[in-house]
Amino acid sequence: MTAHVSLITLGVADVAAATAFYQALGFRLSKAASQPEVSFFQAGPLVLALWGREAQEHDAQAQALWTGNGGVAIAQNLASEQEVDAMMARAEALGATILRPAAKTFWGGYNGYFADSDSHLWEVAYNPFWTLNPDGSVDLPD
Amino acid sequence: MTAHVSLITLGVADVAAATAFYQALGFRLSKAASQPEVSFFQAGPLVLALWGREAQEHDAQAQALWTGNGGVAIAQNLASEQEVDAMMARAEALGATILRPAAKTFWGGYNGYFADSDSHLWEVAYNPFWTLNPDGSVDLPD
Repeated sequence: MTAHVSLITLGVADVAAATAFYQALGFRLSKAASQPEVSFFQAGPLVLALWGREAQEHDAQAQALWTGNGGVAIAQNLASEQEVDAMMARAEALGATILRPAAKTFWGGYNGYFADSDSHLWEVAYNPFWTLNPDGSVDLPD
Repeated sequence: MTAHVSLITLGVADVAAATAFYQALGFRLSKAASQPEVSFFQAGPLVLALWGREAQEHDAQAQALWTGNGGVAIAQNLASEQEVDAMMARAEALGATILRPAAKTFWGGYNGYFADSDSHLWEVAYNPFWTLNPDGSVDLPD
């Protein structure tokens, strides 16, 4: 097994509120795996978790490391420009902050960016050069 | 297709240096997809990208959002406590900062945390309650 990513955890202020947001956005909550303190979603090929930011900082002893928010962008790739527009509209309707409306990109694709209420950065993208698998994953060439 | 995660991008100060670090850690670089300004790795079920932090901030218009670093933990789940120990040792040998050495967790698993040189937080975990697929992905129950 080569090195890989299995799961990402977003530190949030209110787990219940963030869970409601991501469910409404279309993520599939695993009720069996979740608890009031932590939510787990099957996010296509990845597990997306929501956990209290302070609990997470304490668990990882990351208080000095986490100086604010930033440095990571999470991307959802979709199958067309229309799907990108629909997902951006859904996020905006749910209260997300639109950072950059969807538009053609310099690399020949189409994307937009939004932030959730905990300042996590999401990209919603259509990349015509990459093949998207049914579960939302992408297989890169060597 | 339900909502999902396809890719995460880490904002870094030096793409070449960060690429060398993640290759040495065991991530599979896609040379065909990568360019000097951006590296793409097949990270199990996910694509892991490295891109200049300033370019990424500018692209996403995230200057006001990215106040520092923090809020996201990226996890690599492995098949045993021994594999966790080996990956933590490899990261440390490559210059990563060990935030919390691997140890038994309150939830019945085994994990440790390290930070890369751009202050990105990684968890390395063994979770005996979850089934790990050959590609490093996890399938949650409903």
